[in-house]
Amino acid sequence: MLLRSGILTSSDGDAVALENATAGSGIVLVCEHASRLLPASAGDLGLSPEALSSHIAWDPGALAIARSLSEKLDGVLLHQRFSRLIYDCNRPPESPAAMPEKSEVYEIPGNRELSPAERYARTAALYIPFHDRVSDEISRLQGEGQRPVIVTIHTFTPVYFGNPREVEIGILHDADSRLADAMLDAAADSPFRVERNSPYGPEDGVTHTLRLHALPQGFANVMIEVRNDLVRDDAEVEVVSSHLADLISEALKRVA
Amino acid sequence: MLLRSGILTSSDGDAVALENATAGSGIVLVCEHASRLLPASAGDLGLSPEALSSHIAWDPGALAIARSLSEKLDGVLLHQRFSRLIYDCNRPPESPAAMPEKSEVYEIPGNRELSPAERYARTAALYIPFHDRVSDEISRLQGEGQRPVIVTIHTFTPVYFGNPREVEIGILHDADSRLADAMLDAAADSPFRVERNSPYGPEDGVTHTLRLHALPQGFANVMIEVRNDLVRDDAEVEVVSSHLADLISEALKRVA
Repeated sequence: MLLRSGILTSSDGDAVALENATAGSGIVLVCEHASRLLPASAGDLGLSPEALSSHIAWDPGALAIARSLSEKLDGVLLHQRFSRLIYDCNRPPESPAAMPEKSEVYEIPGNRELSPAERYARTAALYIPFHDRVSDEISRLQGEGQRPVIVTIHTFTPVYFGNPREVEIGILHDADSRLADAMLDAAADSPFRVERNSPYGPEDGVTHTLRLHALPQGFANVMIEVRNDLVRDDAEVEVVSSHLADLISEALKRVA
Repeated sequence: MLLRSGILTSSDGDAVALENATAGSGIVLVCEHASRLLPASAGDLGLSPEALSSHIAWDPGALAIARSLSEKLDGVLLHQRFSRLIYDCNRPPESPAAMPEKSEVYEIPGNRELSPAERYARTAALYIPFHDRVSDEISRLQGEGQRPVIVTIHTFTPVYFGNPREVEIGILHDADSRLADAMLDAAADSPFRVERNSPYGPEDGVTHTLRLHALPQGFANVMIEVRNDLVRDDAEVEVVSSHLADLISEALKRVA
């Protein structure tokens, strides 16, 4: 048995999905928490059905927003096909959050005291191929003369540790705030409550994908967080993603 | 630029080397610290020539022992072609020792505050391909009906933090001590000072390769440490490796 092949079998399919591959704007939409699918080998990780469909398993609505943005902005979209409960691709292997033993109020029995072989297999099967693929796509766009812009799409739960959250859309950035600054300027009259680095910020380790794929190369970049009760159906997704597409388009005019 | 390709370029060559690929004993010799070669991209990591040729960069003599054992025992040999200063393949990415900022008395400036992108690139270019390849070879041997036995080969410095070490050969093991026990029995009359889990043991994190490739599958396994002042030339390597080959052969008769 190959060390990494215990995680994903051929019936599971690939870790990474690419959509709108021929898009021409240079915008690269990345969705690390697109799916709550578990590989067959993972069973249920000892979690209840409620936990397995909750925000600890995925970012509900994020893939729908990302797909809509991909179409509206003519950007490529890359998303992880498996739940972050197995490996959170927005965290490096050295982070305890990569294969968490606990997430919010939920214990995750199947992640307790993982063996080195299990950690290796998850890293090799899910994390490395995901970021290799994102890197490949960015490199391809550059080769075609496009100027990559990295946009990661997340949603967050409206109630966290029992506390309701007021923020509706978070515009997050790491050391390079150009695109985020311009989006926040453009959002001055937003019908949504839009905040900088909220409900998370770089100090929470959430900008890993930006640190890998945008900061070293100086590509304009932003991480977007949408409160998931605002994107419960297609109509809501359309409202939010139309607004985000406007903000991004306007901001890119100012940054470019 | 692909994220991982900044580390190894085509002129550097592969991370992993396989030797004696048609060997038929099932023994898999692994040498994670075979080389002090640095990828061109690494420069000198801010280290002096003395540090770059010292035990912090590699295990002097380990590859020579492993090659000799590969021949004597009819085993395949896999070794890392680059220095552990870039990535120590006997450590997982979550270990501070994987890309150490300090090793023994030496500060390693080129490993200070590595960016997430640099850590990713090293992990993806050196660690993952190494263990994927070891895993592939073990899987192939199994497919051919061989029974894998995993033997990792290391050397240690005779003086560490100023203190001389008395032990000459260490027989190290993790939870599965079968092969180590049998080797220690066979070494009762050894002309060398042979000790169990010395100068390191599993509590030092040195059994990572065994934990990846032997323990989960129940393959007989051992880690061998030789004091590097005993293997300074070919004649010395021949004496030590002949003795080790005898110990391993004898031990495998008892374990099998």
